[in-house]
Amino acid sequence: MAKDVKGIAASDGIGIAPAYLLVDPDLSYDKVKVDDTAAEYARVEKAFQDSIEELTQIKENAKDRLGEEELGVFDAHIAILSDPEMLGQIKDDIENNHTGAEEAVDKVTTAFADMLAAMTDNAYMQERAADVKDVAKRAMSHLLGKQLLNIAGINSPVVIVAHEITPSDTSQMDAKFVKGIVTDLGGRTSHAAIMSRTLRIPAIVGSNEITTSVEHGQMMIVDGLNGDAIIDPSDDQVKEYEAKAGAFEAERAEWAKLVDAPSVSKDGKEFEIAANIGTPDDTEDAVKQGADGVGLFRSEFLYMDNDHMPSEDEQFEAYKKAVVGMNGKPVVVRTMDIGGDKPLDYMPLPKEENPFLGYRAIRICLDRPELFKTQLRALVRASEFGPVSIMFPMIATVAELRQAKAIFEEAKAEVQKDHPGLGDDVKIGMMIEIPLAALNAAQLAKEVDFFSIGTNDLIQYSFAADRGNEAVSYLYQPLNPAFLSLVKHVITSAHENGAKAAMCGEMAGDEMALPLLMGMGLDEYSMSATSILRTRSMMKKLDTKEWAGYVDEIIANCATVEEVQDFVKSKLG
Amino acid sequence: MAKDVKGIAASDGIGIAPAYLLVDPDLSYDKVKVDDTAAEYARVEKAFQDSIEELTQIKENAKDRLGEEELGVFDAHIAILSDPEMLGQIKDDIENNHTGAEEAVDKVTTAFADMLAAMTDNAYMQERAADVKDVAKRAMSHLLGKQLLNIAGINSPVVIVAHEITPSDTSQMDAKFVKGIVTDLGGRTSHAAIMSRTLRIPAIVGSNEITTSVEHGQMMIVDGLNGDAIIDPSDDQVKEYEAKAGAFEAERAEWAKLVDAPSVSKDGKEFEIAANIGTPDDTEDAVKQGADGVGLFRSEFLYMDNDHMPSEDEQFEAYKKAVVGMNGKPVVVRTMDIGGDKPLDYMPLPKEENPFLGYRAIRICLDRPELFKTQLRALVRASEFGPVSIMFPMIATVAELRQAKAIFEEAKAEVQKDHPGLGDDVKIGMMIEIPLAALNAAQLAKEVDFFSIGTNDLIQYSFAADRGNEAVSYLYQPLNPAFLSLVKHVITSAHENGAKAAMCGEMAGDEMALPLLMGMGLDEYSMSATSILRTRSMMKKLDTKEWAGYVDEIIANCATVEEVQDFVKSKLG
Repeated sequence: MAKDVKGIAASDGIGIAPAYLLVDPDLSYDKVKVDDTAAEYARVEKAFQDSIEELTQIKENAKDRLGEEELGVFDAHIAILSDPEMLGQIKDDIENNHTGAEEAVDKVTTAFADMLAAMTDNAYMQERAADVKDVAKRAMSHLLGKQLLNIAGINSPVVIVAHEITPSDTSQMDAKFVKGIVTDLGGRTSHAAIMSRTLRIPAIVGSNEITTSVEHGQMMIVDGLNGDAIIDPSDDQVKEYEAKAGAFEAERAEWAKLVDAPSVSKDGKEFEIAANIGTPDDTEDAVKQGADGVGLFRSEFLYMDNDHMPSEDEQFEAYKKAVVGMNGKPVVVRTMDIGGDKPLDYMPLPKEENPFLGYRAIRICLDRPELFKTQLRALVRASEFGPVSIMFPMIATVAELRQAKAIFEEAKAEVQKDHPGLGDDVKIGMMIEIPLAALNAAQLAKEVDFFSIGTNDLIQYSFAADRGNEAVSYLYQPLNPAFLSLVKHVITSAHENGAKAAMCGEMAGDEMALPLLMGMGLDEYSMSATSILRTRSMMKKLDTKEWAGYVDEIIANCATVEEVQDFVKSKLG
Repeated sequence: MAKDVKGIAASDGIGIAPAYLLVDPDLSYDKVKVDDTAAEYARVEKAFQDSIEELTQIKENAKDRLGEEELGVFDAHIAILSDPEMLGQIKDDIENNHTGAEEAVDKVTTAFADMLAAMTDNAYMQERAADVKDVAKRAMSHLLGKQLLNIAGINSPVVIVAHEITPSDTSQMDAKFVKGIVTDLGGRTSHAAIMSRTLRIPAIVGSNEITTSVEHGQMMIVDGLNGDAIIDPSDDQVKEYEAKAGAFEAERAEWAKLVDAPSVSKDGKEFEIAANIGTPDDTEDAVKQGADGVGLFRSEFLYMDNDHMPSEDEQFEAYKKAVVGMNGKPVVVRTMDIGGDKPLDYMPLPKEENPFLGYRAIRICLDRPELFKTQLRALVRASEFGPVSIMFPMIATVAELRQAKAIFEEAKAEVQKDHPGLGDDVKIGMMIEIPLAALNAAQLAKEVDFFSIGTNDLIQYSFAADRGNEAVSYLYQPLNPAFLSLVKHVITSAHENGAKAAMCGEMAGDEMALPLLMGMGLDEYSMSATSILRTRSMMKKLDTKEWAGYVDEIIANCATVEEVQDFVKSKLG
């Protein structure tokens, strides 16, 4: 009998495949005394040998996808499984104490891991402790005859079912076999949701109960358009959803024709639909998806994926690559948005009670202007190769904005000593993601070329609800009428004071929000590259004047999100 | 030579006394081998005996001030110092290994503490580990001839100088000897600042460098009116500040005459100045300071100071006591404002990344309506004894407010089964402390009797800056013009929709903010009881119509806090 589980539709599309339950098996065991110690030790040898073979196979499967460093981890694990010292101790324990294989492996590996973990002044050895634990888990699974799941080992079509998905899961996953993802936790802005949209994998998040509802290997349908997961579907249901998937693919093919089309409304008003990117390589996909530019280039990868503070030249090369990659279309780079929740070995930051309300982003940059100027000089230099805009994150006050602009002027002057005039056409903008900045948009707009509304953070702070915290996820309400009126205030204030208004949060790609934002006159919509064509297609069907009126009606008459949703649905028909 | 240190003026008044440097001494020692082991062990015996005498003395000094439980800690420490097992091990180590006294005490006490701390399933024993460490510190200080500071032992006038002050320091302190407090850390809303104002101790916080600028015992002047600390003052300076202190005391005497006076502006407009209280006993001081009511009764003490969820009857007794204590004047009780940063043994809450943006206050109450109804029934019952208003914290949306009100109606109906009509005159209000609620004030005002603007949190969320985090304390900006316009919006929206507007954050008692708030028409000002008379005195000198005009000028023309401050100062003259 088919069973339905509901969740949050997080990534479009329909997938049909057996469930792959990404949940650790129970590795508990009974302590026993054994008589035949030789046979017992032989069990250990076999488990270790099976583990080595399994790791070798996984490495082989993954070798085209993973980098050298990631593949090196498999070699390290194999080396631990071959360590004569560790095996010797396990053998001794079995022979001398008649300990069972499971207990001996558990004891000895735990002692090794603890010893490594105790080397608190040696980060390398401490990390090896985690490797020993991983290896022990694998050997134990073989001893106990349990299947240890390994996301890197997936080599046939599956629907991944998990409590939640971590970035390390994602890095190991071969996307071409993943036909769908369903998680217990997460909202539309969780890692699983964003990653699924980027990789175009149909996904449902926040289902609460999927890991307890489906068994490993059971056939499932994931409807990422509506948020329905169907377990053990009937043949008729499979047919029905295959047809739906076909229709969706056909629609996607229609969208693909819009790659070179302008982003224009039914009544002929021109907009820009841009891409959010994380590395210079992402420009390739942005161009392929017909982006009118890059609306948000997150510069954090330079800081996060490095073991040292990136130099001016290293940064310059990265920005230049992105600018060249966009081939004349504008690139908006957000300056460093690092904080206490993203630790950097080479720049220790204080551990904070509430890192989202802490010392981060522009607050660090204003406090350490030399660090900031290095980035700004690199950006000015990159502007030689195409249109560059710079945008400051986490600005709350006019005083902060003025300070940031003054540091930019210094950086530009330094570059211009060698390159007269360079950087004079760089546009300066700021993120609107702090409520006070949104409120004060009129004053701030006088001092910038553009705003970019960062809705994920602006919602988080406006509702005082951590967007990573499940317990308050009900307060992620982009369609709350009071929030909509704040967004409208920002856009209107920008226009009245000669600035452009963009948006680069999840809301910009939201189907229900798009008509409202067009009605408010938002100029630029920056989103995951995969959402661009769908958005351009929707845009063609919407009349801005009509929706401007609807926005006013909503702000005047609606009190709750549900009322707004009902209204928008009724008008979209 | 006198030396000046600047900080944030945190509590009014002037204090002159020797510095008491609340900083742990250096207890490091050299490892030595001793020949005369008998003499070495005698040193240990003397140090332990001296520690016991010292603790006995401190306990004696503190016995009138501290409760039985707090005094019990001293007995526990004395018992540890008399433990024959511990002393025996120290003696053995010295005799057998010729270990020095310091090393032997350190080794053996550390081993004892570690053993206790390892009893992870026994919270009582784990707490004893901390006691052993405390005791070891004291014994070591005697061995090393260092003075171990003990805030409970202060029995002559001092100025406490510290990196920061914790609530546990405060609980041990005999306020009558503390003539001033100066700290390195903290802002106007830090524990040290709020506590100093409550106890009327002149205080300066956030000086950054006081602990490294003054030596223990050096004479100091603390000018809590201007934020100046003067170290080693000249005789002339002492005279000058004694005169200033006299003038301030005279002013305070003038204020005292206003205890029964109405809270009224120069142009005759009546306001209310109320007290913020934390326990029912605080009503005594509120009445003494002439409060027009209680504007904020924090109900957390019922949950925090308890080892079980407070029952309806326990809560009822507490609310009744406060209501009776105010003798007919209104009492506004804020419902439970607990969250992940305030752990309760009997109600485990998840550990959160950003507890200020987490599952707390009304969010917990709406999720656990039975818990909430218990409190609401107790409040309805207390309304039999005087005017009670209920206010909900952390409301962000209209939907949440409606849900909270529905639960209140259920609770009232339950009480009315036995007490027909009781609770019908209870007024319902909400805190405005979340930016979205402030923005949406017009809609929300239609559904409540009153607002109370919680400025500490509203500033924290509006600027996305944790108010406990030093690194972003520059963003505590009640006088930011955009923030002032938000406050004005809330007050105006309340009045236009038939609701009263109160304020219960630090801003309500701020001298620079008061005229602006009066100009905006704020109805009620709730603050530390100690600030009420000063505020009533200032109020008499201010013309509301004049300041209404100034508010408009500020909102129209000022871009930064500094511009607002200069403007207000110029008008106050």
